[in-house]
Amino acid sequence: MKKLLTAAALFSLTLTATAQKEDSLFIRRMADEILVNSKAYENLRVLTKQIGARLAGSPQMVKAEQWGLKAMQAAGPDKAWFQQCMVPHWVRGGRDLFQAERLVSSDGKNKKWSTSYLDVLALGNSQGSNGAIRAQVMMVRDFAELEAKKDSVKGKIVFYNYKFNPTFVRTFQAYSDAVAYRGQGPSRAAKYGAKGTIVRSMSHSTDNNPHTGGMSYADSLPKIPAVAVGLKDADWLDSTLGRTTVFATMQTAGHFLPDTIGNNVIGELRGTEFPNQYITIGGHLDSWDAAEGAHDDGAGVVQTIEVLRVLKAMGYKPRHSIRFVLFANEENGTRGGRKYAEEAKAKGEQHIFALESDAGGFTPRGFGFTGPEAQYQKILAWKDLLAPYGASEIVRGGGGSDIAPLGRELGTPLCGFLPDSQRYFDYHHARNDIFENVNKRELELGAVNMAALIYLIDKYGL
Amino acid sequence: MKKLLTAAALFSLTLTATAQKEDSLFIRRMADEILVNSKAYENLRVLTKQIGARLAGSPQMVKAEQWGLKAMQAAGPDKAWFQQCMVPHWVRGGRDLFQAERLVSSDGKNKKWSTSYLDVLALGNSQGSNGAIRAQVMMVRDFAELEAKKDSVKGKIVFYNYKFNPTFVRTFQAYSDAVAYRGQGPSRAAKYGAKGTIVRSMSHSTDNNPHTGGMSYADSLPKIPAVAVGLKDADWLDSTLGRTTVFATMQTAGHFLPDTIGNNVIGELRGTEFPNQYITIGGHLDSWDAAEGAHDDGAGVVQTIEVLRVLKAMGYKPRHSIRFVLFANEENGTRGGRKYAEEAKAKGEQHIFALESDAGGFTPRGFGFTGPEAQYQKILAWKDLLAPYGASEIVRGGGGSDIAPLGRELGTPLCGFLPDSQRYFDYHHARNDIFENVNKRELELGAVNMAALIYLIDKYGL
Repeated sequence: MKKLLTAAALFSLTLTATAQKEDSLFIRRMADEILVNSKAYENLRVLTKQIGARLAGSPQMVKAEQWGLKAMQAAGPDKAWFQQCMVPHWVRGGRDLFQAERLVSSDGKNKKWSTSYLDVLALGNSQGSNGAIRAQVMMVRDFAELEAKKDSVKGKIVFYNYKFNPTFVRTFQAYSDAVAYRGQGPSRAAKYGAKGTIVRSMSHSTDNNPHTGGMSYADSLPKIPAVAVGLKDADWLDSTLGRTTVFATMQTAGHFLPDTIGNNVIGELRGTEFPNQYITIGGHLDSWDAAEGAHDDGAGVVQTIEVLRVLKAMGYKPRHSIRFVLFANEENGTRGGRKYAEEAKAKGEQHIFALESDAGGFTPRGFGFTGPEAQYQKILAWKDLLAPYGASEIVRGGGGSDIAPLGRELGTPLCGFLPDSQRYFDYHHARNDIFENVNKRELELGAVNMAALIYLIDKYGL
Repeated sequence: MKKLLTAAALFSLTLTATAQKEDSLFIRRMADEILVNSKAYENLRVLTKQIGARLAGSPQMVKAEQWGLKAMQAAGPDKAWFQQCMVPHWVRGGRDLFQAERLVSSDGKNKKWSTSYLDVLALGNSQGSNGAIRAQVMMVRDFAELEAKKDSVKGKIVFYNYKFNPTFVRTFQAYSDAVAYRGQGPSRAAKYGAKGTIVRSMSHSTDNNPHTGGMSYADSLPKIPAVAVGLKDADWLDSTLGRTTVFATMQTAGHFLPDTIGNNVIGELRGTEFPNQYITIGGHLDSWDAAEGAHDDGAGVVQTIEVLRVLKAMGYKPRHSIRFVLFANEENGTRGGRKYAEEAKAKGEQHIFALESDAGGFTPRGFGFTGPEAQYQKILAWKDLLAPYGASEIVRGGGGSDIAPLGRELGTPLCGFLPDSQRYFDYHHARNDIFENVNKRELELGAVNMAALIYLIDKYGL
């Protein structure tokens, strides 16, 4: 019995070693193909430079969908199509203005008003100021200080100067820590009668670019105007408020137009063994209106298409059906992701796994997984196959806004691709999220690791 | 006995766990200090923007030494000094020219000469052309092709078009693979009578910047001029040579002036228990003349100073003496590193460990170690303490040009800091190796991991 077991164990070990070797070689071949012949960088150039910013509902987003379908088809799916969904249509409506006025004295006696224009961007989904408003600016460092000073908020413009915490090595933790000031800050200030809000950007960049991003109003409170301000201007405002009184004239023009038609762009490779079991890989096609959306999420879009391209180039016939999805509306509604899950549920589709790349086109670090422990352990066991390409950190927790509905609605296990996060918030939702700030090889290595993970999941199931 | 052993083992485990906890907390405190209060980025700005390019022997290198000593002293060593050494003094001597001329016909009948100026940089240490030379250009893809075509080399300008291999994920492997064309290419072509050489840059960048770097002539052969060419121009030359004959007019003016005085800048924290046992940490202060040397190796310089600063800020009293060294002349002579080892040997100093940062200020990946297996295992055991800051890859092999002489002369175990390598050869020895291409947090995280390693080595020995 003992001998038999040993022989069986040995046989199994040998099989495992052989399989590992085979997988390692296949992944190496995919990596070579991507690092030599990738279309990801050129696709990104076209998406960012020829189409540019593409907020849901915008004419550029329509162009992006058309481009996306063509680029998807060029990568060779069995079929590709639009999945229509209604998307919100927020527009900035004009140039955002924040004019700070302070009393200064050059001779120690006579005071006069001095004006400084801060570099601001209205927050996404925010309501315009309906002409200019003028009010005194008061600063709070956090919500606790707002609550403590709530009696003096009325009629003021509240400046949230909450700092992006540099001690979080994983910068998404700093984002989670700070983002409530953008998302809920306006309504929390409106509750105490504030006339407007200006929010320190969620960033630790060394420049002064303001970073916009989504916010939402509490239904019961006045929809006051809200802007993001760059870090240098935020520091200037902070130190100026420490010395003198500051009034500001603030003007924004954001508003919603009626919901309009958007599309998820979907490509599919039909499964040879389990055609009715789906693996999804995707990124989102929309971006904020202020920049080219190169890292957020042009990178995820072109990596998704690249994974399809490389599987086809390898002649790989997947066991499960694999869907490559460019989601329609992550930034201010996630309507694309919700539509995808809704239709999957309505059709009774079985979705065994979903992967999203929406953390930038930076050098790979790993994957974050949300799902049962046994499945996590299975992915963890593939670590040595991914490590040569940089994705050696397989951690608990992760996914993506667009695939989250699949997890919620269908219980699909989810993975988020984790590139290195140090530079992400230098560019996130800011004007400098442009093609030039994406490195070709880093982008490609992301696609290598995503292709490797999809291959392993398809081959072994989860 | 069994019980006793168990108790002892438990005690030891508890001790180990307590020590690990203590180390983890201390490293966390150093990381916080660096991520909040680092001087590394501002030091790098001054070094690159106020001093700039600083080849050994240049006036800027003298300024860099003076700056380095001040910056070192500001970080609070027990003492700081210059260690004098003689350095080579190569100068470019003028603008490098490579004018390609080809016969073209617009009407299919009459041909005329068309001229294109390629963007080139003379290779470091190369001898000028002594006026312009004009010769036909012949391309070889590698040394094998040169040997096969050796009979047609005479009187020509040899174009080495060896490609930087994109399939090496660790880009330094591609560099090792290609660098012989820069270092030895000129003499190997001169051996067969070539009049000059033009070498494809050691890079996989998406731009056209030429990348210079050191070369050396074989003593017995003519010292022919040699330039590096950017990748787009190299591809253009390749395709043009596929269609027609190309002649080139080439002019360079590089030459050596007499050796001059240079200085290693050294700071020291005196050891409290083993003052005569030294740990060295360093980078090199010199750079090529074409750029600011921000990644190569301004990053290593300011990280070295930052490690000193943070140890002082922690109030840390090292057990061993720690030396912080800005080496004088890595790029074209390594005279600084050799001097440092020579003097250490002459004084009978005991050097137990040396660490160099000379692979750029990018996000950390790990450390490469050269030394006995038992010591490697010891460092490997610290992996979990470094992983939270990104340096989880502890690999065999590594060091640095400046500390290599310590290894050779005194048998010192060596470590090289390994940042992510994807972007390094976009900038290496090229005009765009500038401050703006260094990310503040990535630079700082490098210093965090270097400080952590030095702390662990000092605390536990090696």
